[in-house]
Amino acid sequence: MSSEPSIADRIAALQAKIKSIKIAKQDASAEVEEMRQLKALLPKPGEGIEPSGDTGGFVLKTPKGTVDFKPQATLLRKKIFSTLETIFVKYGASTIDTPVFELRKILAGKYGEDSKLIYDLEDQGGELCSLRYDLTVPFARYLAMNGILSMKRYHIGKVYRRDQPIMSKGRLREFYQCDFDIAGSYDPMVPDAEILGMLCEALSALDIGEFTVKVNHRKILDGIFELAGVPAAQTRSISSAVDKLDKTPWAEVKREMTVDKGLPESVADKIGKYVGLKGPGFKLLEKLEADATLNSISSVRAGLKDMRLLFGYLEVYGVLPLISFDMSLARGLDYYTGIIYEAIHDASAPPSLSPDPAVPPLSTITSTDLTSSSGSTTSTQTKQVEKEKNEDGVDESAVGVGSIAGGGRYDNLVGMFAEAAGNTREQVPCVGVSLGVERIYSILEMRRRGREEKVRGKETEVFILSLGDGLLRERMSLAKKLRDAGIKTEFMLKAKPKTPVQWKMADDDHVPFVAIVAPAELKKGTVRIKEQVGRDAAGDDKGEEVAMEDVIQYLKTKLGKA
Amino acid sequence: MSSEPSIADRIAALQAKIKSIKIAKQDASAEVEEMRQLKALLPKPGEGIEPSGDTGGFVLKTPKGTVDFKPQATLLRKKIFSTLETIFVKYGASTIDTPVFELRKILAGKYGEDSKLIYDLEDQGGELCSLRYDLTVPFARYLAMNGILSMKRYHIGKVYRRDQPIMSKGRLREFYQCDFDIAGSYDPMVPDAEILGMLCEALSALDIGEFTVKVNHRKILDGIFELAGVPAAQTRSISSAVDKLDKTPWAEVKREMTVDKGLPESVADKIGKYVGLKGPGFKLLEKLEADATLNSISSVRAGLKDMRLLFGYLEVYGVLPLISFDMSLARGLDYYTGIIYEAIHDASAPPSLSPDPAVPPLSTITSTDLTSSSGSTTSTQTKQVEKEKNEDGVDESAVGVGSIAGGGRYDNLVGMFAEAAGNTREQVPCVGVSLGVERIYSILEMRRRGREEKVRGKETEVFILSLGDGLLRERMSLAKKLRDAGIKTEFMLKAKPKTPVQWKMADDDHVPFVAIVAPAELKKGTVRIKEQVGRDAAGDDKGEEVAMEDVIQYLKTKLGKA
Repeated sequence: MSSEPSIADRIAALQAKIKSIKIAKQDASAEVEEMRQLKALLPKPGEGIEPSGDTGGFVLKTPKGTVDFKPQATLLRKKIFSTLETIFVKYGASTIDTPVFELRKILAGKYGEDSKLIYDLEDQGGELCSLRYDLTVPFARYLAMNGILSMKRYHIGKVYRRDQPIMSKGRLREFYQCDFDIAGSYDPMVPDAEILGMLCEALSALDIGEFTVKVNHRKILDGIFELAGVPAAQTRSISSAVDKLDKTPWAEVKREMTVDKGLPESVADKIGKYVGLKGPGFKLLEKLEADATLNSISSVRAGLKDMRLLFGYLEVYGVLPLISFDMSLARGLDYYTGIIYEAIHDASAPPSLSPDPAVPPLSTITSTDLTSSSGSTTSTQTKQVEKEKNEDGVDESAVGVGSIAGGGRYDNLVGMFAEAAGNTREQVPCVGVSLGVERIYSILEMRRRGREEKVRGKETEVFILSLGDGLLRERMSLAKKLRDAGIKTEFMLKAKPKTPVQWKMADDDHVPFVAIVAPAELKKGTVRIKEQVGRDAAGDDKGEEVAMEDVIQYLKTKLGKA
Repeated sequence: MSSEPSIADRIAALQAKIKSIKIAKQDASAEVEEMRQLKALLPKPGEGIEPSGDTGGFVLKTPKGTVDFKPQATLLRKKIFSTLETIFVKYGASTIDTPVFELRKILAGKYGEDSKLIYDLEDQGGELCSLRYDLTVPFARYLAMNGILSMKRYHIGKVYRRDQPIMSKGRLREFYQCDFDIAGSYDPMVPDAEILGMLCEALSALDIGEFTVKVNHRKILDGIFELAGVPAAQTRSISSAVDKLDKTPWAEVKREMTVDKGLPESVADKIGKYVGLKGPGFKLLEKLEADATLNSISSVRAGLKDMRLLFGYLEVYGVLPLISFDMSLARGLDYYTGIIYEAIHDASAPPSLSPDPAVPPLSTITSTDLTSSSGSTTSTQTKQVEKEKNEDGVDESAVGVGSIAGGGRYDNLVGMFAEAAGNTREQVPCVGVSLGVERIYSILEMRRRGREEKVRGKETEVFILSLGDGLLRERMSLAKKLRDAGIKTEFMLKAKPKTPVQWKMADDDHVPFVAIVAPAELKKGTVRIKEQVGRDAAGDDKGEEVAMEDVIQYLKTKLGKA
């Protein structure tokens, strides 16, 4: 192996690092300089190896808005998935795997004006198909198609949106969604509480630091609009203005309602009286229940009754302290019919080193009187600068801030499919949550970097190297022995590799143990095992000499596998 | 929960079962009759629930050639992946995740006439893209694009081919590939042996029963053609005729060579003298090495030298008894440049119940003199009826027969990309294998059915049910306690579910333990735990009464988790 591959590898690694640093908006000048120096060492620097933009001709790149996940990134994502799956399964979910494309008709009319973001497959004869836009519509199609009336399912898969990619913020056209949904006619708020209980456990298990789950109810929001005098036809439009309150001052939202959308100022002010309210569940609930005007609206009463049930159940689940009843939460999708929620990561909290992030203390009700203080933002809002709101909580955004999960109850979506197919018999009420894998990934990557943990792209435990004349069969034979014992083992696939090249390979991959095969030791029936403590561990320490018959036991003990 | 969902669910389960039985070409008449009876119980049988073919109008179905993997099928696939990943990682591979679509130019000119099977994305403005056809070309693109000169990587992902689907044989348009490749300039046959050693361990670990890995070398094959007098331009075309020998009699292959492809009969006979040879590695090798005529061809000498090295290494890996040197193996893809191989499942062997399938005894060299016995098939061939040959070994086929993995050395593919991008400096030699997940799935499913193991779509360990007045909070609270201890727990999400409905839910999901919450026991601070032995376990056995504070320990012990 020449010295070139390692330079190319180091450049590739450095490119990934610089990209991450830039995403995190931090200083990458040292890394850029290091790369410049490395490139100078290449025989033909800069010739066609790197993508250079689509300037005509043949360019090696991935399509716009897509990226290759390299080994480290893939490994961290797999860990996220595995943590989530363990919890999904513990809560009784099974999983399904649907095609990455659906008949175009299935997706039609589900996403409003975002339908323009759907990727279509070319008409090559046969059916017209499109890439899936989310995992929710395929799930509803699956239920309706199979006549399934109840199911708890999770699904982790990639979805596709022809959105304008913002690579610096990690917003991609191909990205993972991670959904957990409960379909079926159960009793009010019981599946909803199960979802929120699961969500809080999942986010805690991911060790992302502090978070809050904002909860609201579409019926309460609609009731407030009714009370304020919003015409029914304008409900969703005004709702989407309210939804901006977490990143936009009230004055601006009010301007949108009155100037852009023609609402009388008195109506906007009545809305403002309520949508600024937020706080711990029962405390805000009692305040609202005591409001006679509000309770004159039947949908508000229904919503508040649901919330009381929900908070009671969430107390049993032990997650109530993580919940904030937030009347400004509206969420974009039209199809929500009941409670809605969104988990917000608190980026301002210092990264916790403990595996169990402390329950964040929730402030008591904050009622920043929006009607009188037009420009104020709440304390929570100041933490959420740059929050990219998206209707399903999975849009990628700036590192460490904003929504990391979202969802709600959608009781009519499955029925839409059943009805379209001529089967009007069944409604299948659903409630679900979608976790934003890319944001969670960014947060975990930042925390890892904060702890200065090393990144590994592979999990190799032992690297076998030779001193002397190659000893290929001896290395192969020892590798077989170790692998047969379940130990992750590598050796250089050359007949007579140079010793420094082998040390470098072990170091580059951060392999924790090196087994040294050498003529003198082989004669004695031993092998020398050296624990690698860092990249410069190839120094004086000669390691321990272990008899060949004890080597498995020795390594298993060292690796904590005995 | 009404009785309807269970009927719909039972029908869905029955449909899946009937489909599997039909795939296995066995008798499903009892199941069909059971389904007919079940459907009669539905309020509105047959109305739009099931897909009824694309007869215009709105039909709920997946696109042609694609299927939803239901929970049981998804779970079994996940187990296959996890078994393979454990081994891939043990052999030092890292994993990458590339986009599901590539720039159209990247795929162009890689698949010969099969390029017509590529799915194109519609031109919606911007770059022209296509769905990936395999995982090999994206890997080569990844290496060339990042200037990576050495890498051991695995990749599990779906690929797309607009082939004529044969649903009864499980040949789909969207299916999983599972690839392991070693890129880099190493020493002859060392990475190749590493791949074959890994492959044999992987196939053994999957517990699919007996298998053989056929191995050949492109240089030997090409040398035989040279010796026989095949014009260089016809080499690949004649090679593809030879490749049919595992399912076609020599007479037919010879007819193709002479009548269809215009080869003189004497040339065909010279080919036939060699391509019928197969047997254990060293034994056949010695015979070929002793053949002076053959050794007059330099590419044969080079190929035989490689094979001697390879078999020596495979001896160290301990997998030589699983290998058959088979001179009829040619494989379709043009880009192979060195050794080629294909793993064949032996469906005629009785399913073994042991986790370690015995090493199949290989017959000694069989040389069915093709030149004199025109219609004969070898003993191995008779086992391979209906084998669907595909150039990368992942095409789905009839259950239990045929190729389950395939691959070879391809030294020029990465260079093609580097060159196209104007970087002619680097060649990155590669060798790899692709495992046919869908076939492996079919084999495992058949074996499971042969053992009459129950199928579970979820892994729930404890179902909490209530006797008496619902006791929702008590069930919720116990569920939280068990889940906090890592026990997979479910309960019915209703306030006051009927007892028989809860029993049925536990039975339908084959949940091994039921925890019964009842007023009398709650007063005493106990819960009754009942082990479910079968679907009719709700009978006389009342289970064991366990103190609430001991319930975790009790269940963990019972579940083997203590």
